[in-house]
Amino acid sequence: MMTPHFVLPMFFAGLLAGSTAAQTVEPFKPAAKPGAEPTTTLAQQYREVSERIMAATMAGNDSFKKLEQLCDDVGHRLSGSPQLDKAIEWAIDSLKRDGQENVRAEPVMVPHWVRGEESCTMVSPRREPFPLLGLGGSIGTPPEGITAQVVSVKNEEELEALGDAAKGKIVLFDNPMQPYSKEKGSGYGTTVRFRGKGAILAAKKGAVACLVRSVTAHSLRSPHTGALRYEEGTPKIPAAAITTEDAAMVSRLQARGIPVTVTLKMEAKTLDPAPSANVVAELRGSQWPDEIVVISGHLDSWDAGQGAQDDGGGCVQAMESINVLRKLGLRPKRTIRVVLWTNEENGLAGGKQYAKDHEAELANHVAAIESDGGSFRPEGYTLECKDADREAVAIEQLKEITNLFASFGATRAEKGGSGADIGAMKPAGVVLLGHDVEGSTYFDYHHTLADTLDKVNPVELSQNVAVMAVTAYVLADMPDRIGSRPQTQESNGASK
Amino acid sequence: MMTPHFVLPMFFAGLLAGSTAAQTVEPFKPAAKPGAEPTTTLAQQYREVSERIMAATMAGNDSFKKLEQLCDDVGHRLSGSPQLDKAIEWAIDSLKRDGQENVRAEPVMVPHWVRGEESCTMVSPRREPFPLLGLGGSIGTPPEGITAQVVSVKNEEELEALGDAAKGKIVLFDNPMQPYSKEKGSGYGTTVRFRGKGAILAAKKGAVACLVRSVTAHSLRSPHTGALRYEEGTPKIPAAAITTEDAAMVSRLQARGIPVTVTLKMEAKTLDPAPSANVVAELRGSQWPDEIVVISGHLDSWDAGQGAQDDGGGCVQAMESINVLRKLGLRPKRTIRVVLWTNEENGLAGGKQYAKDHEAELANHVAAIESDGGSFRPEGYTLECKDADREAVAIEQLKEITNLFASFGATRAEKGGSGADIGAMKPAGVVLLGHDVEGSTYFDYHHTLADTLDKVNPVELSQNVAVMAVTAYVLADMPDRIGSRPQTQESNGASK
Repeated sequence: MMTPHFVLPMFFAGLLAGSTAAQTVEPFKPAAKPGAEPTTTLAQQYREVSERIMAATMAGNDSFKKLEQLCDDVGHRLSGSPQLDKAIEWAIDSLKRDGQENVRAEPVMVPHWVRGEESCTMVSPRREPFPLLGLGGSIGTPPEGITAQVVSVKNEEELEALGDAAKGKIVLFDNPMQPYSKEKGSGYGTTVRFRGKGAILAAKKGAVACLVRSVTAHSLRSPHTGALRYEEGTPKIPAAAITTEDAAMVSRLQARGIPVTVTLKMEAKTLDPAPSANVVAELRGSQWPDEIVVISGHLDSWDAGQGAQDDGGGCVQAMESINVLRKLGLRPKRTIRVVLWTNEENGLAGGKQYAKDHEAELANHVAAIESDGGSFRPEGYTLECKDADREAVAIEQLKEITNLFASFGATRAEKGGSGADIGAMKPAGVVLLGHDVEGSTYFDYHHTLADTLDKVNPVELSQNVAVMAVTAYVLADMPDRIGSRPQTQESNGASK
Repeated sequence: MMTPHFVLPMFFAGLLAGSTAAQTVEPFKPAAKPGAEPTTTLAQQYREVSERIMAATMAGNDSFKKLEQLCDDVGHRLSGSPQLDKAIEWAIDSLKRDGQENVRAEPVMVPHWVRGEESCTMVSPRREPFPLLGLGGSIGTPPEGITAQVVSVKNEEELEALGDAAKGKIVLFDNPMQPYSKEKGSGYGTTVRFRGKGAILAAKKGAVACLVRSVTAHSLRSPHTGALRYEEGTPKIPAAAITTEDAAMVSRLQARGIPVTVTLKMEAKTLDPAPSANVVAELRGSQWPDEIVVISGHLDSWDAGQGAQDDGGGCVQAMESINVLRKLGLRPKRTIRVVLWTNEENGLAGGKQYAKDHEAELANHVAAIESDGGSFRPEGYTLECKDADREAVAIEQLKEITNLFASFGATRAEKGGSGADIGAMKPAGVVLLGHDVEGSTYFDYHHTLADTLDKVNPVELSQNVAVMAVTAYVLADMPDRIGSRPQTQESNGASK
């Protein structure tokens, strides 16, 4: 189905880039062949320019430098925090310095949850502090804390089987995430449910607080935070993540008939919503500037670590993608719009506000890409669209595009999830792409103190920039909108 | 040189064990062949009994159950702490319950360092707490802490090049440990020098405190503690380990010309020496009970995690080795003596006291084994002896013994280090063996909060018990002392 692999050795890439970077580049004219055999057209049309983009990106770009500034100068940046404000300022300054167009902050009101001091101490059968991260959105405890016996359950069935035994206790959901496998993936999707709804399940059984085993298969006594949900009509109880190690120990002691009691103290509270913003910048289109290809990551993070993999890397991938294209003098027919979302982690207010503010414009959103799986070696894209026919056509076209990334092993192009923020554009029928990477270690760092810059490999980050820049360029420049069957005239899907 | 590999599939091992465990076992009589060709004798003589020991051990033993009790009921156990006292009590009770002989606590006075509260907070260019573990033996800071600029150096040369620039500053030794490789090992030996002598080096340059990059190649923002040294005539300054992530960040900021200031607070202090003990138990020899083969691990740990890999596992390997032999009715000619050392981590007082108290007996110490590299898959033994001739003979004999472990892949038998505690017996000419395991992840957990029971695989722990039990049995039962050339009469090396 695909043409043979295109291999661009890094050494050769460097040479190419050295030569192209030095000269002023004429705007690229793809060899459009209206009416030609469509299954190979895109790859043929864009092979030359994609080689130039990838070579130039790998020869040197500012993505890691940008990420270093974001991580080391700003640090983590939870919605409502001064650090997120600082990150927004930094992003705007950085995009302006790069000479991007229409750089702006689009206001969004975001939830404002603050952690405060927190601790969890096993007080019986012996005294031992448990490393802890309260769950985002949790209420706090009384100042003296909550001291109660812990009952450990593996899942909903074990909780149900307790009957009244959870009343007045602290329920621990000790549901291990299985190690990553290429076939089954991370298992995050199923295991994370206890972090999300554990507090509701426990409260319904009369528990006074909820602990969850951190959602990871690999821990060095590292707690992983994340958002919880409460629901109307069920009491809100405080909830926090403890480490896999401590969860396992509590379960072992319980299995030996030794009751475990802990004191949980949390100052967590939710303040009034705070002003924030999505950061937007553009590489304007030469022919149909009102047609938009969004490329994006989210600028907010949890209040732990540096938000390097989640999702500083996604942000700088998008920022640097248009920077690489601009430096090469490559201006596609449509507009590429960088959006750095606010509030992905605990509310998705940024994505929702964008879809609302740009509602009239969504019909002209040709595609939206989000990168929020880390900056590991790129593997390609997954794609979804509300309209099944357009989705099927789009996936075939996407295969043509990712065929260009054979040298990176990033040829994945299949139906699948896209991104939490761009999800708000799905009802409008926008073609949504999830930027896919090698995910075996992502959940080792996810939502922890250990999500720091050193976890990002600069070469892999650059590979992601190269892949995103090429994909955005092709999507913004291809004669027909992705998801539309090729037309005989130069047109776009909106006319069909 | 070695006979072909002996392979005992686990399945077959289980069957064997099932049959042997059910019956009362007659004391084993090795087919001693005085004067026979020595290079194959040991393996031939002990193949049958070693198969029985390994099969019975792998079919079921109490090593993991013991380790669970030590880790979960006692937890970590630093010299001088109530937990170490509790661990000593537990070990004595456990050994007595197993019916071991001469179970006793041999008194040792140990250093008594206490950590107290501690913190390290970056206060400029932005505020961020650094996870921290003060180094064992460190002095504390004034109550208000020490606030000073950090100067990061990679090694002694970079420190020297600073000239007076370290004066009044906090020196950070940011020397990365390289990832483990089969060829080069962990690199711990060289990297750890900054933890050991960094405070001295920094104080000599006028620094007011010392930070070291944690000695690990794999971190999830995990600080690694360990002992430091001070020296006469050089001011004592407080010293602590920060994570690899934070050390790298400080160095990155410094490289960009951005000064980093931290506030270091430590309550650490050294109290008067405290009473402690080595725990001793024996499987008495049938023929030469005054000749001793020591098998050992250390019972103390750092005050973080559970001391599971370092070195609870080594302790239960030794405890369970004589338990397995006793249950099988296997009593060797010489005495196998279990010693659980106190104070390996910060003083070696246990090993030194033993060598002193048993000085008159050391000539009859045939060999001593220490397991202190974790309870990962066993690989065999390294061996050292003050007397080069005896060492060479002993290594050849050891090869015969480890040949019995081909089914575990544990055939290593070569010259190399043994153990920190048994090292005190080296001057007396005792043959010292280091129990060797697959070491690729040991330093991920070493001296951290993450050294917990879940890091120990029960099957691998049992493999270690099997290997140690067989080795101890052969060393205690072989006609000639290890390191002695075979005699024509049944004798032992002491008569030569």
